[in-house]
Amino acid sequence: MLLIVGMLALTSVATATGQTASTAPADSVSKPKTIGIVLFPGFETLDVFGPVEMWARLPDYQIVMVSQHGGPIKSAQGIDTLTTYSFDTAPQFDIVMIPGGMGTRTEVNNPVMLAFLRKQDKGTQWTTSVCTGSALLAKAGILDGRKATSNKIAFTWASSQSNKVAWQGHARWVIDGKYITSSGVSAGTDMALGLVEKLYGREMADRTARGSEYVWNDDPAKDPFAVETRP
Amino acid sequence: MLLIVGMLALTSVATATGQTASTAPADSVSKPKTIGIVLFPGFETLDVFGPVEMWARLPDYQIVMVSQHGGPIKSAQGIDTLTTYSFDTAPQFDIVMIPGGMGTRTEVNNPVMLAFLRKQDKGTQWTTSVCTGSALLAKAGILDGRKATSNKIAFTWASSQSNKVAWQGHARWVIDGKYITSSGVSAGTDMALGLVEKLYGREMADRTARGSEYVWNDDPAKDPFAVETRP
Repeated sequence: MLLIVGMLALTSVATATGQTASTAPADSVSKPKTIGIVLFPGFETLDVFGPVEMWARLPDYQIVMVSQHGGPIKSAQGIDTLTTYSFDTAPQFDIVMIPGGMGTRTEVNNPVMLAFLRKQDKGTQWTTSVCTGSALLAKAGILDGRKATSNKIAFTWASSQSNKVAWQGHARWVIDGKYITSSGVSAGTDMALGLVEKLYGREMADRTARGSEYVWNDDPAKDPFAVETRP
Repeated sequence: MLLIVGMLALTSVATATGQTASTAPADSVSKPKTIGIVLFPGFETLDVFGPVEMWARLPDYQIVMVSQHGGPIKSAQGIDTLTTYSFDTAPQFDIVMIPGGMGTRTEVNNPVMLAFLRKQDKGTQWTTSVCTGSALLAKAGILDGRKATSNKIAFTWASSQSNKVAWQGHARWVIDGKYITSSGVSAGTDMALGLVEKLYGREMADRTARGSEYVWNDDPAKDPFAVETRP
């Protein structure tokens, strides 16, 4: 019995690390917690890599990429990113982030994606989204009864995915309990720093922004791209 | 003879597209010009993907990734991006961009990298860099006699790569002829929009920024992270 469990564990590791050792996260040994970013074909590039830039500096969190089948995933901008885990091999993440992009129009109708988000959300410390990633969280029922925001150009479409969410048309990002949703694309970088502040305090968030010469819009209520929402 | 040329062409295509057809750029057929982004181990994530977000919307330019040997390249943040071309299979790019990141400390001593940059630069419409990418252009001699800038935290190191460059300590980005160099990390996104303005005019640059809910620092002289330079 012990032998079988051991073999299963080994198999799982081999599958999780994929074809080459080079896909393993750089600091996987030294960082005890994991941020899992969920990719799908047609994800929006900056939704993912703005937060990656800010979160990679966190001392206790490694970042990994996950997709339904693992392997390379092409963004809406045509660039391929390697994902380390498939939905089947992914461990429980401490923080999960789902980006937006035109691919969300397909993914809202993908029950495997919605089930994966629901399963992860049960064990996360924080569940986050950028842009129309919140449409996926909403469609999965994860944001029921919560305040949330989304991309402002695609706001009508995103908010139509669930009428159980208190959609906020005027917000750079929204925190409600463990849920953080951001506005479109670039807003994700501001949200990411907002989470750094929640985890490690203001000084660390400022230092992270300065380290990448980033002028942080640090006020979640300051939204230059706000839209009207029906009362 | 014709047969041999044909076979060489086929071999070249097979190498250039790598293991899978999915690594080919999305709009490779419809866009006549090419932006080549040069990756190396330890490149800085946002240096690359801020500009990718802004440039992918250009009607006439496709974006491709190139590295010395092709295949996946791990950023300083631990994420793997697939490169479509190796230095041997890369075509002449219309625009070339070299990012920064800790990997530049190794690449300034890589003669193959410096030779590739020199070779590309001979045929480009624009040669650009983000962050310490300018240290590589400088070391290659490409910026001799030009004004240029770099990451402000690493400014002393970057500017030490060549005393033939008029280094600018106060600049979000610098345009000198066909050369555009930006300050650190996030400054690359502002520079990228500056190039959009050069290519297609102000209205297109504003529309691109708005489309990604990005608050563009549109003034290359406005540098919140400026450093003193010796006279």
